[in-house]
Parts: sequence; structure tokens; C-alpha cells
Amino acid sequence: MSNCVKVNPDLQKERDNCTFNVTELTHLIDGGPHKTDERKKREEMVFKEGIHIDDVPSDYLSHKEKYELAVKKACMLFKMLRRLQDEENAGMENYRALLGGNLGTAILGDGSPLTLHYVMFIPTLMGQATVEQQAYWIGRAFNLSIIGTYAQTELGHGTFIRGLETTATYDPATKEFILHSPTLTSYKWWPGGLAHTANYCVVMAQLYTLGKCHGIHPFIVQLRDEESHVPLPGIKVGEIGAKLGMNGTNNGFLGFDRVRIPREHMLMKNSKVLEDGTYVKAPSSKLTYGTMMFVRVMLVHDVCNYMAKAVTIATRYSAVRRQSQIRPDEPEPQILDFVTQQHKLLIGTATVHAFRLCAGWLWDMYNNVTAELETGDMERLPELHALSCCLKAITTSDAAACVERCRLACGGHGYMLSSNLPLTYGLVTAACTYEGENTVMLLQTARYLVKAWRGASAALPPTVAYLAEARLSRHAPRWRTSVDGIVAGFQSIAAGKIRTCVAQIEKREKSGMCFEDAWNMTSVQLASASEAHCRAFILSSFQAETEKLVVTTSASLKAVLLQLVELYAVYWSLQCLGDLLRFTSISERDIEELHNWYEDLLVKLRPNAVGLVDAFDIRDEILHSTLGSYDGRAYERLMEEAMKSPLNAEPVNRSFHQYLKPFMQGKL
Amino acid sequence: MSNCVKVNPDLQKERDNCTFNVTELTHLIDGGPHKTDERKKREEMVFKEGIHIDDVPSDYLSHKEKYELAVKKACMLFKMLRRLQDEENAGMENYRALLGGNLGTAILGDGSPLTLHYVMFIPTLMGQATVEQQAYWIGRAFNLSIIGTYAQTELGHGTFIRGLETTATYDPATKEFILHSPTLTSYKWWPGGLAHTANYCVVMAQLYTLGKCHGIHPFIVQLRDEESHVPLPGIKVGEIGAKLGMNGTNNGFLGFDRVRIPREHMLMKNSKVLEDGTYVKAPSSKLTYGTMMFVRVMLVHDVCNYMAKAVTIATRYSAVRRQSQIRPDEPEPQILDFVTQQHKLLIGTATVHAFRLCAGWLWDMYNNVTAELETGDMERLPELHALSCCLKAITTSDAAACVERCRLACGGHGYMLSSNLPLTYGLVTAACTYEGENTVMLLQTARYLVKAWRGASAALPPTVAYLAEARLSRHAPRWRTSVDGIVAGFQSIAAGKIRTCVAQIEKREKSGMCFEDAWNMTSVQLASASEAHCRAFILSSFQAETEKLVVTTSASLKAVLLQLVELYAVYWSLQCLGDLLRFTSISERDIEELHNWYEDLLVKLRPNAVGLVDAFDIRDEILHSTLGSYDGRAYERLMEEAMKSPLNAEPVNRSFHQYLKPFMQGKL
Repeated sequence: MSNCVKVNPDLQKERDNCTFNVTELTHLIDGGPHKTDERKKREEMVFKEGIHIDDVPSDYLSHKEKYELAVKKACMLFKMLRRLQDEENAGMENYRALLGGNLGTAILGDGSPLTLHYVMFIPTLMGQATVEQQAYWIGRAFNLSIIGTYAQTELGHGTFIRGLETTATYDPATKEFILHSPTLTSYKWWPGGLAHTANYCVVMAQLYTLGKCHGIHPFIVQLRDEESHVPLPGIKVGEIGAKLGMNGTNNGFLGFDRVRIPREHMLMKNSKVLEDGTYVKAPSSKLTYGTMMFVRVMLVHDVCNYMAKAVTIATRYSAVRRQSQIRPDEPEPQILDFVTQQHKLLIGTATVHAFRLCAGWLWDMYNNVTAELETGDMERLPELHALSCCLKAITTSDAAACVERCRLACGGHGYMLSSNLPLTYGLVTAACTYEGENTVMLLQTARYLVKAWRGASAALPPTVAYLAEARLSRHAPRWRTSVDGIVAGFQSIAAGKIRTCVAQIEKREKSGMCFEDAWNMTSVQLASASEAHCRAFILSSFQAETEKLVVTTSASLKAVLLQLVELYAVYWSLQCLGDLLRFTSISERDIEELHNWYEDLLVKLRPNAVGLVDAFDIRDEILHSTLGSYDGRAYERLMEEAMKSPLNAEPVNRSFHQYLKPFMQGKL
Repeated sequence: MSNCVKVNPDLQKERDNCTFNVTELTHLIDGGPHKTDERKKREEMVFKEGIHIDDVPSDYLSHKEKYELAVKKACMLFKMLRRLQDEENAGMENYRALLGGNLGTAILGDGSPLTLHYVMFIPTLMGQATVEQQAYWIGRAFNLSIIGTYAQTELGHGTFIRGLETTATYDPATKEFILHSPTLTSYKWWPGGLAHTANYCVVMAQLYTLGKCHGIHPFIVQLRDEESHVPLPGIKVGEIGAKLGMNGTNNGFLGFDRVRIPREHMLMKNSKVLEDGTYVKAPSSKLTYGTMMFVRVMLVHDVCNYMAKAVTIATRYSAVRRQSQIRPDEPEPQILDFVTQQHKLLIGTATVHAFRLCAGWLWDMYNNVTAELETGDMERLPELHALSCCLKAITTSDAAACVERCRLACGGHGYMLSSNLPLTYGLVTAACTYEGENTVMLLQTARYLVKAWRGASAALPPTVAYLAEARLSRHAPRWRTSVDGIVAGFQSIAAGKIRTCVAQIEKREKSGMCFEDAWNMTSVQLASASEAHCRAFILSSFQAETEKLVVTTSASLKAVLLQLVELYAVYWSLQCLGDLLRFTSISERDIEELHNWYEDLLVKLRPNAVGLVDAFDIRDEILHSTLGSYDGRAYERLMEEAMKSPLNAEPVNRSFHQYLKPFMQGKL
């Protein structure tokens, strides 16, 4: 990567002064040297095809042109993928890297109209279709004879799935389902690829049979003629319009005017409707939680990628940018030397590691719980569900804040699309809303925590075990200024807030309020209890997982990794001082110690700031940023990119002759 | 506004239940019934021209088309303005409304290429040109014979003005200045209208004469031929590329290759260069602070407009949207009934009033201080400067957070550009960076506070007088759970943090660090001290100004206005509990009381949530939002707007035949 490019001398100096082996950390992040090799080979292979190169950056295209470019590139990408699969039989790894990971966004920066085909359509068929149905559909889907998507959200309902309005009514006479959109708000709204790309769709609809509603079930529906791509009769389909981001995804709407589909098009692996219209319920409704949780685990991985990009860009730029003065009569310092700048960036680097290790932990737990489910054991399902909800909320909102902080830390230039920070923010902030709105997610975890608190006499699962201890003693354990102490502190906060909320709810109930209203009145504090629980969990697993890792690393890397854990812990304790003061025995002297510890950590980490982001090893093609490239030629690239603006292709724009000149001459 | 449109029944119910007279509040906000009338007449006049109506929403255009549309609309707008001025000799009010206010953004939503001509070019000529120069230039500028802009920021330097690199070297032989860009980083970068619109420019450059540099001075430079608009020899000019927002402003870059201009093109009202090259210094360099502070005061007004739009949109949508459940077996509630939603929105409404009144207060102070300056009295200049710095930082960052919170509170639909929330965020977040980067601003105020603290034995100006009291007693005054008490609490926080910072700095100096390094090490806490000072100021002036207003209002409006002050005070004390716990005598019981007070205020304000945003009286044409219109037809408008997407003009996009079908058939 670094061979034969001339690197900005400030950036080179940073690399020369790094105290640890950057490659060692890269290997650690990838999961071993062979994994790094595989990744690099895959990247090499993909980028040598040149699909990622645009004549005119897509930022300058019209909305329609952006879609057309996205279709072209998505087709090229998956064509290449097909070839690669044929050549080396590489399994799912290539798919995963190109769909979810950094590599996909390097080619289709603002989303792909084919993603949902792979990420939702095919997996739903695999998870919810019967064996016969799979035999019929999956082959066609895999070889792209059909392109599908997944339609659940409606104009009027998102997170609250029970409220969906689309109906699928069984007609035993013809053995068909009639799909219908009874209201404007029942139109499907948002599914990626739905607008002009997919010709098939899994539709979630309220199932009616023999006069009774049985709730939401999946149906496969053909939307467009396979030859002409024209929408079929009764199908109203189109795109929902321009968005803050993801303008390559071709999000669509979909309405049905009594569209008939064969009975066999209901996906019947779980629940069924027999020919005579009899409804047969699935053995367990909890099985469908699986996909939702899987997606949330993947989301934590995604937001790590976005954050890693943003901190790489902002940190390298801060090493290159010189500005202002610290000491008079000295040259302008690198802005990375300002402690306020270190404060904005280093927590970002630490957070990437924290979330990455959490995601790994959650992935293991997910696999364990899924394995237990297969044997009928559902004991840890509520715990996993509660954990995945608050982690979804906290990681996405922290990541969005981190990306935006990085953008603002680059000053005006962060506002340029060519920095790639605005686009990254557009992607990461979307995750605060989709797959469960964040406030709703926090309150779901809170519900679990309140239940756990009330039942704390019984044995509690590991991640909430601390609640039982807290319930026993009314006094917080003595404050200790250490990472362990901080974890215990956050657990005290969570327990203390839950205790307060439960007391509030009970008080309100006694005053005559029903539980639901009392819950609603207390919900601001409940969400905050849920957040504290999540922070305690993230911090403790970050620490525990890092302790495991450093057993095998070099001493120099070990030192840096432990500093990152400390930084993350101290940063958050300083952010949450009010809570610590309320729910632990922390003193003013302890706070001073925390401040000193924090400032000391910034001093220690400063020389490794660039090395740490280099270790994320994000290729320039993936970063796609004028400010963040490996060689640090930020100003040169800003100018080079500006010159690609079609407005700069001609010295005088036609609007001068058309409007400006007549206007100036009073002739308009 | 409301006549003959069918209003969503939920929204109508909200209006029926409002406890105060909405029109009375509108009058209060506008500054009296006649001001409301004037505004409404102006709006009526502007919108009947139809300039705001686009065939295809500009969100769907290419970058180049967006610029061309912006030029067209800007010309139409100012043509109309010229006519209005001729017709009724209306003074500056029309200009101000169309340039800065809501009305301008209703027509040119994403910025105008002519704004800087009026907002910076002409004012700079008026402030910095001699009488003779004004005679020559201002007429031509006013009648648009020339179009100008103002170029200060460079690729390599923004907030730190002393670091600018463009040079203007005087040549006594020819009596000319030679403008030159010695490096890539010295290129001007960012000025609005510079790219392809302006043909003249005020350029800030390092003045060299007789071998000596005298710092930054203003020069007027012709950029393009007046007839052909082609850039003149030695002028390298173009656009900087696509941005997160403000894509109608035509931001440009500008480089000089030894461009000669006559001596008379230096703006010499303050400093001068004589024919022989002698430099004559301005009597006072502080006079130039004026414009900068004026712009910052205006900024506070602007961010109020952005916030008012965002809370109007999100509040009305929250009254229309029904979702989820509070109590089982009841219909889905309006999402405005969720306390977490009230928590997100009502603080936004309160903040608009708080910032608006602060801006008014600051405007009066600005005028007083300017009047004093004319008489040579500069005593309150540092205080005003310090106040304007922290207010710029806190109001812009709070406003950006508020707009984004409103967007997220609208769930997925807030992500649609047609909600107008993303565009509004793009505009408001830009203000966190321009006119002085926020962290730098906070540290400038901190410098003043530290100075005030150290000199606290002498008499201190009113806004920092509390520091003197705090210095005398080591114990915080007793906590009082009241608005006054909270103001005092924030002053204790500010004083306490300044005290701590000063002690830290001194300790570090004693350990051998130079002052500058000690300052840098302490800067995270210094910025936070500055923030606390600012919050104390906002809160106390919000309270004081509201107390004055409610003397003449009806009792029902008075009650609501005082509730908003209380809400603002309690919200921020709950946000800053940690600081209050550290620097005041607040107890756990007081905190519980604050929580109850807050929840009680939400209950009281809930029925007036819609009335309060209606009172901002923002016309639908200005809101420009599918989610926020007066009639509440959010879903209908979402669909109507979607249908305007050019992609929806044809059922099958050409990319199907070009890429998708060949790809599906394996023929690509």
C-alpha cells in the first residue's frame, strides 16, 4: 500500500514514532495473519476489476443517474462474484465481504439495489419456506433468474409490526390468497430494490382465513413480468423518493389491489394454511426472533466499519493539517496536538475496538443460544433479546455521534462530500432507525431489566446477575479508580436507576395510575437505565475480551490495547459523572484522579494515534476520502476531486448567458 | 392558512384543546400585530410570484442542474425584490427577510449564489472602503452591474486568520499590488458565489510593502470579464465540489498567478498604503471586530429559524402518527403521547424561545457597545466578544442536535428528503464550523473567563460579575429548586470549573510546563467551563426577558411561557446533574424533585405542543415538508412527493434492458 507513493512528511513522522507493530494489530483485528492475507487478496482481486472507478463521481449525478449507475455496478459486482465462486468455490466469505463489509461500500458507496435479494430475500426463503418451496424458489433466486426483496414496513407502521395493515385473505374456492392494501398507510414503503429492480418479493401480511385473522405471515409475490419487467395487474409499485443517504438502494413502495396468488406462495415452514382454509400454527413463534437478532449482531459489525473509516480519515487529516498556535513563535502545530482534538478522536479508535469485541461476544452467544434452541431450550433467549436490543441502540447512536464528531473535527473540509464523512454519516445514522427504532429498543431492554429486578431473588442470567447483588445491599460498593471499579460503577448506576424506576412506577400505581401509564411516565428514566446497563456490559466485555487477547501479543501492543480499554472506561465515567456521583461513593478527589488519568492516557496514546488507525488497514479505495488517504496528500486530493465537478469542465456556465447577464443588465 | 383545507382530525383535536391564544403568541414572537401583518403581506407577495415552485424537486437534479436552477431562482428573486423596492421604497426589511430569514430558504432551500454579494461584499465595501472608493463601487454593486463575493478562508487556513498565505505585494514603480498564491494551500476555498457567479471579489491577503508584512488587508479584485464572464489572465477560479449541504451556494476556489491591481483597489478606510509604499496603520484594529460580531448575532437568529422549522415538522407529525401501544386493547396512540417523544420535542420548542430572546438581548448589547465604540469607549468590547463566541458555539451545536433529534423522532420518514429535515440539518450543522469553529470559540470565551477570574478583585462586567462572588466564598450557595436557583447553580458550575482549571494550570506551570502547554492540557475542561458560563447566561436572560414579556400578555399565555422557561431550566439541570452535584449543594431528594417537576411540566405542556409550534406561524411553503404541513396530510404528501421522482415517470427504467436483464440471463 505504501510503496512508492510520496507520503506527507508529518504523517511519515507519526508512523516512524509509533511504538507498536502495526501489522501485528492488523492481524489481531482480522483474526490471524492468514485472515489478513485472504482479505488483502480478495481486495486486490476486486479492485483490479476497476468496477469502483467512476468517470464522474456519483455525487454529481442526478437521482435517476445514480440509480442507473448503481444497477450497472451491482450487476458487474455480482457477475464478478459469480465468476470468483466458479473459479475457486470460495463459499460464503466472498458474499459476506461484498454485501456487508467495507468492500461492498467501496464499490456501491450509497447502497446497492441488489443487497436485499441476498440479505433478506434468499435468507427468508431458506428460513421460512418448506423443503418443496425451497426446491422451487431457491435455485432460481441463487442463479438470479429472479430478483427478490423483502417487504415488511408500511407507510403507517415500522417498528410496531403488529400494526401492519396489508391483508392476505384465503379463498378456499380457488385455493388462492388475495393480497390487498386497504388504506394508503398500508402501502409497503422502504424495501430496498423494490422500486424498479426486483420482480419478486416476500410480503409480510395479516393472514385471514375462514373469517379469522392470524397475524403477520410471509408470502411470495411476483411483482413484474419476467420478460418485460412491467408491473403485473393490481400491483402499484415505484420508488419512495430521495433520502438523506442510501440513494443507491432503490427503496420502493408497493400496493395491492386484490392480487391473487396460489396458496403455495405462502411460506409455510412454520405456520400453514391447508387447502380447506384451516390454519395450522407454528410450533413456536419465538423461532422467528432468530433472523431479527442475527441482523442486529451484523449491524454492530457494520457500525464498527463506519466508525473505523471515520476515525481513520479524521486522524490522518489531523496529522496533516497544521493550524493556529499553541506556543507563540513556534510553527503552527498539527491539529492532532490539540488536546481537544485528541479528546474527539481517540475515543473513536477505542470505541471501534470495544464494539468489535462486543460484537464477537454477542455472535458467540447468539450461536450458543441458537444451538440451545434447536434442542428446545429457550432459557437464554430473553437475555439475548434484551442484550441485542440495547446494544443495537447504543452502538448505532454512539457510532453516529462518533462519525459526526470526526466530520466536525475536520472543520470545513469535513463538510465536502469528497471527504466521504457525510456519506458515512448518512449510512450510520440510518441504522439508528431501521431494525427497531432506538428508543423503542432501549425500552424493550428496560422491560427485561425491570422483570429481572423484580425476580432478583431467583437466579439471574450472567449479564444481569449484578442486579441480584445490588438488590441485597442498599449501599453502593466502595468506589475504586480502576477499570474494574468503573465497570462496577456502571452496574451500580444501572441497578440504582432500575431501583428508582421501579419505585416510581409502584408509587404511581399506588396513586391510581395503571401500570402502562406509570411505565410511560417513567420511560425517560427507564431508557437511561437501559443505557447504563448496556454501557456496563460493553465495558466489561471489552475488558474481558482484551485481557484474553493480550496473553499472546507482544508487550508493546499489549500496552496500547490496555490503554484503549482504560481510555474507553475513563471517558465514559467522565461523561456519566452525575450518575456515578448519585449511585456510587465516588468523591471529588476520585474525580480529579479520573481527569488526570484521562489526560495522561491522551498523552500516552497521542504518538500512536496514526498507527492505531493504520492498523485498521482500510485501503484508499475503501476509505474513498480526500482527507484520509494513506499518503496524506489531503490538499492535493481536495483540488483534484474539485476538478472532477462537471461545473468545472467549462469556464463559463450557460446560466450566465441565460439568466445572470440579462439580470445584471436589467433585461431579465 | 387553514381555510378550506381538510385538516387531519388528530391535529384538529390538538388545536381545539390548546389552552392559549395562538395568534397572541405569534404577535409576541413577531414583535406586535403590525409586524405579523407586514410579514404575512410580504410572504403573500413573494409566494404569489410562484418562484418557489419547481417542476421537478431539486433533490432529483444533478449537481450542475442544481446550480443552474439556483442562478435562475436567485435572479428571479432579486428581480422581484428590485421591483418591490421601486414600488414601495420598503427599505432593508425586504432584503433581510429574503436573504437571511425563512423566506429566502423557502425559495432557495439549499443556499443562493448571490447571498454573499449582499451579505458580505456590499457590507465590506461599506465598512472598509474610503468615501471615494464607496462612490466608485457601491452604486455598481447595488444595481448589480457587478456581482461580488468575499474571499478569506483558504484551503489551508480557516478560523486561524493570521495563518492566511495569499500575498498582496505593493510595487511602487507601477503603483500596483501584485496578488499571488504562493502555495496550493493558499488558494481561497469556500466563498459562496465565487465559483461561477461573481465577477468581482474582496480578497483578504497578507499585505507586503517596502519589504515588510503588515498582516491581513482587504483588496477588491476583478475575476471575470464583465461581458464574456471568462476568468481574467492569472485568475484560477472554479467550484470546490459537492457538499453535505448548501449546494446552491456555488462555493468556489481562487488562485492568483501574480495578478496586478491598481493601488486604489486596496480598501483603505482603515489602514492605507501611500503611493510611495508607506504603510499607514488604522487608528484601532478592534474596529474590524464589529462585522464578525454582527454576523454571529445574526447566526443566532438563523439557527432559531432552523429549529422552529424542525420542531414544527416533528411535533405536527407526532400528532398525526399513531403507533404501538401504551395500554392494551386501546387504539394505537398518537406518538406525541409517549413521554419519551415529548422529552425529545418540547425542549426544542422551549429552546427556540430561549435563543430568540438571547439573540434579542445580544443585539441590544451589540448596538450599545457599537455606540460606545463610536465615542472611543471600548470597555465592554471584550465582554461582548466573549459572549458572542460562546453563544455562537452553544446555540449552533444545540440547534444542530435539536434538528437531528427532531429528524430521528420522525423515524424512517424523517430520513426522506421530502420531510425537509435532512436539508435543514445540512444548513444548521454548517454553522458549527463557519464563522469560527465551535471548539475554538469556546476556548476564546474560556480565555476571557480565566482573565476575569484572575482579576476578580476589580469590578467585573455584568455577565461575569458572579465570578467575583464565587471567588470570595469557597462554599457554593445553598441549592434552591427554582429557576433562579438553577441559574445560580449554573453560575456555580462555571465558577467552580474555572477555579479548577486555573488551579490545574498553575499546578502544571509549577511542575515546569509553560503556560501554553498547561492551557492546552486543560483545554477539555476549559471548553466545558465556557459551556457552563454560556448556559447560565442563556437561562438567566431567557428568564429575565420572559418576565418582561409576560407583564402584558394574557394570563393563559403567561402560564405557558413561564412553563417553557421552567422546562428549559429543569431539562438542562437534569442534563448537567453531575456538574450540579459537584459544584452545588444539590441533594438526592432535590434531584427527585427535579425529575418530578420535569415530568409534571411535560404533562402540562403536552396539550399545547401543537399550539406552540403553530404559533411560530411558518407557512407550508416555508416548511416545505411532507411531514409537517398545517393540514397534517403527512401520508398523502409522502406519496404525492414520491410520485414526483423522475424514476417514477416510467414503469421500467432503461437499466433493466441495459444491465439487469442481460445479467439475469447470464449474458452481461
